[in-house]
Amino acid sequence: MTSDNNKIWKKLNCLARSVEQSSIFDLFEKEPERASRFLLNHSIYHLDFTKQLINQDIFEGLLELAEQSDLEDKISSLVTGSSVNISEGRPALHSALRLPESDSLMVNGRNLVKDVHQTLNEVERIVSKVHKGQWRGYSGRAITDIINIGVGGSDLGPFMVTNALKDFKTSCKVDLDFHFVSSMDGTQIFKLLDQLNPETCLFIISSKSFTTVDTFYNANTAMEWMLGACSNKKLVLKQHFVGISACPEKMKFWGIPEQNQLLFWEWVGGRFSLWSAIGLPIALSIGMDNFKELLAGAHEMDKHFAKTPLEKNLPVILGLVGIWNATFLSINAHTVLPYDGRLQYLPNYLTQLEMESNGKAVTEKGDTVKFKTCPILWGDIGPNAQHAFYQLLHQGTQKVSCDFIAPIKRYHNTKNGSGTDEYLIKQHQLSLANCLAQSRVLAFGNKVVSSNDELPAHKFYNGNQPSTTILIDELNPRSLGGLIAMYEHKVYVMAMIWGINPFDQWGVELGKVIADEILQAIQSDHNNLKSDISTNSLLDIIKAKA
Amino acid sequence: MTSDNNKIWKKLNCLARSVEQSSIFDLFEKEPERASRFLLNHSIYHLDFTKQLINQDIFEGLLELAEQSDLEDKISSLVTGSSVNISEGRPALHSALRLPESDSLMVNGRNLVKDVHQTLNEVERIVSKVHKGQWRGYSGRAITDIINIGVGGSDLGPFMVTNALKDFKTSCKVDLDFHFVSSMDGTQIFKLLDQLNPETCLFIISSKSFTTVDTFYNANTAMEWMLGACSNKKLVLKQHFVGISACPEKMKFWGIPEQNQLLFWEWVGGRFSLWSAIGLPIALSIGMDNFKELLAGAHEMDKHFAKTPLEKNLPVILGLVGIWNATFLSINAHTVLPYDGRLQYLPNYLTQLEMESNGKAVTEKGDTVKFKTCPILWGDIGPNAQHAFYQLLHQGTQKVSCDFIAPIKRYHNTKNGSGTDEYLIKQHQLSLANCLAQSRVLAFGNKVVSSNDELPAHKFYNGNQPSTTILIDELNPRSLGGLIAMYEHKVYVMAMIWGINPFDQWGVELGKVIADEILQAIQSDHNNLKSDISTNSLLDIIKAKA
Repeated sequence: MTSDNNKIWKKLNCLARSVEQSSIFDLFEKEPERASRFLLNHSIYHLDFTKQLINQDIFEGLLELAEQSDLEDKISSLVTGSSVNISEGRPALHSALRLPESDSLMVNGRNLVKDVHQTLNEVERIVSKVHKGQWRGYSGRAITDIINIGVGGSDLGPFMVTNALKDFKTSCKVDLDFHFVSSMDGTQIFKLLDQLNPETCLFIISSKSFTTVDTFYNANTAMEWMLGACSNKKLVLKQHFVGISACPEKMKFWGIPEQNQLLFWEWVGGRFSLWSAIGLPIALSIGMDNFKELLAGAHEMDKHFAKTPLEKNLPVILGLVGIWNATFLSINAHTVLPYDGRLQYLPNYLTQLEMESNGKAVTEKGDTVKFKTCPILWGDIGPNAQHAFYQLLHQGTQKVSCDFIAPIKRYHNTKNGSGTDEYLIKQHQLSLANCLAQSRVLAFGNKVVSSNDELPAHKFYNGNQPSTTILIDELNPRSLGGLIAMYEHKVYVMAMIWGINPFDQWGVELGKVIADEILQAIQSDHNNLKSDISTNSLLDIIKAKA
Repeated sequence: MTSDNNKIWKKLNCLARSVEQSSIFDLFEKEPERASRFLLNHSIYHLDFTKQLINQDIFEGLLELAEQSDLEDKISSLVTGSSVNISEGRPALHSALRLPESDSLMVNGRNLVKDVHQTLNEVERIVSKVHKGQWRGYSGRAITDIINIGVGGSDLGPFMVTNALKDFKTSCKVDLDFHFVSSMDGTQIFKLLDQLNPETCLFIISSKSFTTVDTFYNANTAMEWMLGACSNKKLVLKQHFVGISACPEKMKFWGIPEQNQLLFWEWVGGRFSLWSAIGLPIALSIGMDNFKELLAGAHEMDKHFAKTPLEKNLPVILGLVGIWNATFLSINAHTVLPYDGRLQYLPNYLTQLEMESNGKAVTEKGDTVKFKTCPILWGDIGPNAQHAFYQLLHQGTQKVSCDFIAPIKRYHNTKNGSGTDEYLIKQHQLSLANCLAQSRVLAFGNKVVSSNDELPAHKFYNGNQPSTTILIDELNPRSLGGLIAMYEHKVYVMAMIWGINPFDQWGVELGKVIADEILQAIQSDHNNLKSDISTNSLLDIIKAKA
């Protein structure tokens, strides 16, 4: 299906031009029954898209678009292991990582569930050993500091979840601290080496290809530091380095002993990999039971995604609303606003998930799309963003769509012993009130106050910024697992309707080649780079000043 | 001046339509002398805007636009203390916070420099007392943990700078740890109260109005926790709370003793306030000498801004390029990409600085603008963003302008004793190489490789994403001060040409009123909120589940 000769695309374009003359306020006037239509309650999730620029006609049109895009078949292809990643000729089976042990999923004659649970057992073995204080460093002292070295998909997922679920940190024999090293420039590793004791550090080197240059520059610095403390490299590798990769031979080449190697597979995309062995830091932090709850929550969402009719399907709705805003209403920016500081890194995580997956302009057939695909996605903790960029949302010149996310219940039974529970519950209520208030003002602008006074222009709020609100009963491993899976599947829905491949990332390859050329020029005695005049001039400055 | 009946606006619009038919590659072919024209070296800063979609005609047109907007007069109005914040009838004198003690600046018959340095001396007194271990808690133990409670401008500046300048942390008698509590939902304070010892905590309550609800919910939780440890409230206030505000009577009302009050002034905007007493956490972290270096760096930039011809004026160039992209080329998104992990929070800081200042649609005269003002501004450490959202920059459907920022020299004389210096220098070189490589590929796409092979569509890079690169000799307090001031003034330049007021933020007021209504409904026994059906339905869910 292409966009330009298709009836439903034309119809939706017409509806878009028409609704642009209207407003969210008008839609509420005309459809007082919106709340029953556009607010979905599914288990612990409550998804309200009433404050979108969508009416019943548009909603039906979007569902028709999904049907014409064979979305149901494509969902089925995803979860059953078809080669949905066409440019790389392989399936994308993050959902298989969440299947219970009793299930089976045969792909090319192999039961992947068995492989998945075998690795999960390996993860469990390492977690147990560390938690019991039985994983010891070269001097015999138990490991206390876990340092994850990875970038992109090998960093953002474990980092986001470990932070979000700090309340669920498991108590064990050793008091574990977690550190994440991602940036190639050395900032994080430099600070850490100043603070840590090499005797008690366990480095997790995570890289799907086990060749990511960022990761190995950091790993080499870490290794050099370890060798400064213990010159027996074999011992250091055995007691202080775990490798996680889809390439066992590359791990072996770097020196990771076999018992310290954890495997995942080519059919797990980096940005979908926190459910695999890449999630080891999560499991070390919250324990295996909680890690399995995280998987179970995601699996629940997979089942919901695969089996629920489109019009009640949470990821499908999120995806259709996303397409409506980005493609039909030409809203180029989308912001994610959690009203819960524990979800601080969720916007960052989703930035990668959505922009790396769907920041594409070429269909699976190789045609250039004639419409806008993935918008700019960014965000921050909502209450903090109120003091930072909401000014632009309320009174700027840019159209922006928003996702508000908040847990309903919090700080019950915190038992923090500090006697501040009552105060903390009030803080949460304040946060919820702000969440609801902001989506209300963004939708309706000045109309939320019934005043007839003429306002000065700088106090006018136009409103009409569309938003979705997602309430979750509570934030815990299970509900977080489902929330992340909901967004993963949203991304897939959008990609399928746009006709693009969300599972490759060819756009990151060329930079690596050019960086390598420039690095050689930086490290050589003179500037011998064949490049453009701008790059060459910058290089001259660098070489003169360094 | 308005945009629609003005010759220079029309001329620039024509030039924009014409250059859109061209490409950055073409501009380089046609103007081989670009590097000498569009790369400015000023002191320790090197600003390269050759990779923008700008040619000599456009550059001259932009300078003409600046002149017609009376930019030079407006710069002079800013730094001399005219009431440039029109809607609130006051000057915006962050530059006065950086003036040396020997200068004077008379505004309404008062020498502000004297006030500024008097407060600076107060800051110094507190810093010295804490550093010497003479500021003691209720039990007599010296303060070891500084907790800054503030949000927006009272958080982002101190947080960003304290992180950026960790290498410059001063060594003193006590080993100080720094914590930042901003989010109203309690996540940060909750975690801290679990970890800290009330005997050794100093809370800094920062709020210009000293009524910010987010801040006082956090402050009240902190106070309750302190009182759980020491019930003598007067003693707790005296030994554990410092207030920073423009409203001394509000500080007094909350109970901050006079000697613990630090003042700043109505003429300091929150997002421009890190140079004032709000910078206390910075001064505590890096020491007064370094804090004064930060101010001196900013002051150098102020002088450059006030005295340099427009065509060589760094903030003016940044601003004109910003307007060219946002207003004339309709590029709705701008990303800030530091290639140095120490600048991790700079994008966040600039998100507030630019979007809260210029996310406006109404001119100072009350007219609605007919063009696009502030774009979406977001960012991340560049190397990490390469693994997150660069895919979209390279192959997506959105136009995005970029600022690349990197220090040239790093890890020389680190003396970290870990024997890894050589490895860290290599990491920095890798980072620099990637910085240059990415702007090159973004500008020229596939043309950076000289291959005649036909590429599959998914390997095609269109290029033509404009970027500016800012190299800084080294990152230190002085260079960081100047860099921040450069962006502050960029924001002013853009606002003056757009004709908007960058110093107010009326767009954040209405949400507070509505949040208060909803909070009352959340805390009451039944849902008595008069609201829209969406908000009411969400409230019903919350009340049923909480």
